[in-house]
Amino acid sequence: MSTRIAILIFDELTALDAIGPYEVLSRIPGAELRFVAKEAGVKRTDTGALGLEADLALTELTDPDVVLVPGGQGNRPLLEDAEVLDWLRTAHERTTWTTSVCTGALVLAAAGILDGKRATTHWAYLERLEQLGAEAVNERVVEDGKIMSAAGVSAGIDMALTLAARMAGDTVAQAIQLGIEYDPDPPFDTGSPEKAPSELVDLIRSSER
Amino acid sequence: MSTRIAILIFDELTALDAIGPYEVLSRIPGAELRFVAKEAGVKRTDTGALGLEADLALTELTDPDVVLVPGGQGNRPLLEDAEVLDWLRTAHERTTWTTSVCTGALVLAAAGILDGKRATTHWAYLERLEQLGAEAVNERVVEDGKIMSAAGVSAGIDMALTLAARMAGDTVAQAIQLGIEYDPDPPFDTGSPEKAPSELVDLIRSSER
Repeated sequence: MSTRIAILIFDELTALDAIGPYEVLSRIPGAELRFVAKEAGVKRTDTGALGLEADLALTELTDPDVVLVPGGQGNRPLLEDAEVLDWLRTAHERTTWTTSVCTGALVLAAAGILDGKRATTHWAYLERLEQLGAEAVNERVVEDGKIMSAAGVSAGIDMALTLAARMAGDTVAQAIQLGIEYDPDPPFDTGSPEKAPSELVDLIRSSER
Repeated sequence: MSTRIAILIFDELTALDAIGPYEVLSRIPGAELRFVAKEAGVKRTDTGALGLEADLALTELTDPDVVLVPGGQGNRPLLEDAEVLDWLRTAHERTTWTTSVCTGALVLAAAGILDGKRATTHWAYLERLEQLGAEAVNERVVEDGKIMSAAGVSAGIDMALTLAARMAGDTVAQAIQLGIEYDPDPPFDTGSPEKAPSELVDLIRSSER
């Protein structure tokens, strides 16, 4: 039996939030991964430089086993979008995993799914996540029951490997990690606000909205 | 003046090869990043689960400042595609950087661009890269003059941060790293053939072609 995974996309999403997990989760044996959106069709990313195609409208896939909501400026309107929030709440009733990357957590929170739950988001949005009812946690990958959330953008890869291990076992996750040669070696060590110079932290914080 | 970056895509590409670098390079101030293909339009990835849109045909952007070729099974036909190889050779004459991720290096090699040059690719394809005339190197990011190549899939993120530093300075690259919260923390340490169990190495090697 296949495991149906739905990644929700929208205009002005941050592509890597969705594609990091896609690259991992789509490699799980038996996974059937689909990109869904309010309306099917091409969505442009937050930089404007790329179109990603949603093959299905939300109405065409209402009971996925796994849901993933990525981040990006374009998800702010979803915080007040009754159709999307209803779809998430309904799907969440039956999912085995409900997940988010980066500010995707804000959308889950707006749907009420994170009320009182431990969750994370991009470091610049932890306070906002708390305001929306979650117990915001400054960790890279956070699990609370069947909810799993990742910190900003690239953290979705770490979350997806964790999720792959939960779904299909450690060996499958490890094989996927080897297949995508995920042996990270960034040229700098400035990937978190605790490690980066404070002027960079201020710069990024002021550019987020 | 803008820096024009062209990412070559094609059907059956590995999405993260392209999207990791896209997420980094598109954030360089003044960068104008475009997805190009033999013919403009939507290309389906190697899993079949995603469409990525190429906005421009190769004939519409012949003199980019930076070229990036991603990997994926779908690039094998390009190794004998005169139009693509000619486009790469012509572009390479004027680029400031010519780059590849994963098996994208095979395409650069087929174009003759890597003759006698140090370069890398996905670990399972190093021998093939050598056969195509490059000096294959088992490192995560390799520079030789204006050519920069990355190992498999996720290594494109590390390469792109290195490239961003060369193009725009360390501070810009560090700010981008913080923005995408790239403070990697994989749940396993199996991301390279040196670190993974040998049965996993054999499994992945047998599945690559």
